[in-house]
Amino acid sequence: MTKESKIPRPTIERLALYSRPLEIFVKSNIPIISSEKLAELCGVNPAQVRKDLAYFGEFGVRGVGYEVRELLREIKRILGTDRRWSLCIVGMGNLGMSLVENDNFKQRGYDFVAAFDLDPKKVGIELPCGLTIQPAHTIPEQVRAVGIDLGIITTPSREAQRAAELLFRANLKGILNFSAAQVRTPECCIVENVDLSVKLENLVYHLEMLYKEKNVTAQ
Amino acid sequence: MTKESKIPRPTIERLALYSRPLEIFVKSNIPIISSEKLAELCGVNPAQVRKDLAYFGEFGVRGVGYEVRELLREIKRILGTDRRWSLCIVGMGNLGMSLVENDNFKQRGYDFVAAFDLDPKKVGIELPCGLTIQPAHTIPEQVRAVGIDLGIITTPSREAQRAAELLFRANLKGILNFSAAQVRTPECCIVENVDLSVKLENLVYHLEMLYKEKNVTAQ
Repeated sequence: MTKESKIPRPTIERLALYSRPLEIFVKSNIPIISSEKLAELCGVNPAQVRKDLAYFGEFGVRGVGYEVRELLREIKRILGTDRRWSLCIVGMGNLGMSLVENDNFKQRGYDFVAAFDLDPKKVGIELPCGLTIQPAHTIPEQVRAVGIDLGIITTPSREAQRAAELLFRANLKGILNFSAAQVRTPECCIVENVDLSVKLENLVYHLEMLYKEKNVTAQ
Repeated sequence: MTKESKIPRPTIERLALYSRPLEIFVKSNIPIISSEKLAELCGVNPAQVRKDLAYFGEFGVRGVGYEVRELLREIKRILGTDRRWSLCIVGMGNLGMSLVENDNFKQRGYDFVAAFDLDPKKVGIELPCGLTIQPAHTIPEQVRAVGIDLGIITTPSREAQRAAELLFRANLKGILNFSAAQVRTPECCIVENVDLSVKLENLVYHLEMLYKEKNVTAQ
């Protein structure tokens, strides 16, 4: 039914967004959601929601809405989030600490199973989540021993390439990179860069639009 | 020349992305960048780059590329990042700490000028960046006193609505919300939600595609 390989990237990003309110609806035993409601909760327009969901078959009941459980199940299947994924993280500064403590990850099927740092002074520290910080040079052996699917880089920029190389050497194929550095990647691997300030620029842009519309000025 | 109000949202998000390598090129005194190179550095396809940049006039010299300085200046003007913005942040856990210490923000024109927490035990703590954590109930008076443009929420989910209300009461119009909670917003305000696990779902999706193509399985 689905032709996943043809789904454009922005749609995939929005599918992940759509799954958030759907999860809440499932928990609240609400069986049907309209495209208008889903769009409103996700901050996109309803036509976009309908277009995105049309990529993977006919879920909507015209004039009624979507079946929440069925839609969420299909989104999770497409995104690959219908299974659990094991993560390791390199760089246990404040950002690293905030991610391993973030309940959202566990709730959505991502389990942190190892934490590493390049700084010997951090090695051995026990984290509130139960993990102990390991030295980064042990990444390849730990990945084999524990079984890890994905790596997350939260090191300072200058250490990001080194962290990435240790992860690639461990034969990991997917990395989420929170550092400001672009890392060079072997062709067989996928690196998603997360730039926390990009969202701020969206906000600023929309705010300036708002000021222009309302003819008011920033404080 | 530009019709900013007609620029679609995903283009705006990509403009912010494009500005990253352009900044590096400006610093390195490289005058021209091709759409292929820019696309490669940002992980989007070249046709998308050309389409996005076409929204705001003719920058490209066919067969050569874009003038780096001029392109960056125009992107910053459109995004509103050609000025400095003052930020306050509510919620000084690990994530809050990592953001105020993140050099990217300052480099891109965002200055943290006040830090708040709802927990009285955190009030008075001096941060490495020089700010002292203030009690959240003083947000309205501080915003007036210091002059603040934008608010960032990094509280736990259960405190996010309270933080948002204090920011709205201070007459702030733009909020970047890192908490997992959706906050209810007055119509005159803009809230951008940042979900750190969404990027992980993109990664997982693309990884599964890769496995299917290469006919290999996840470890």
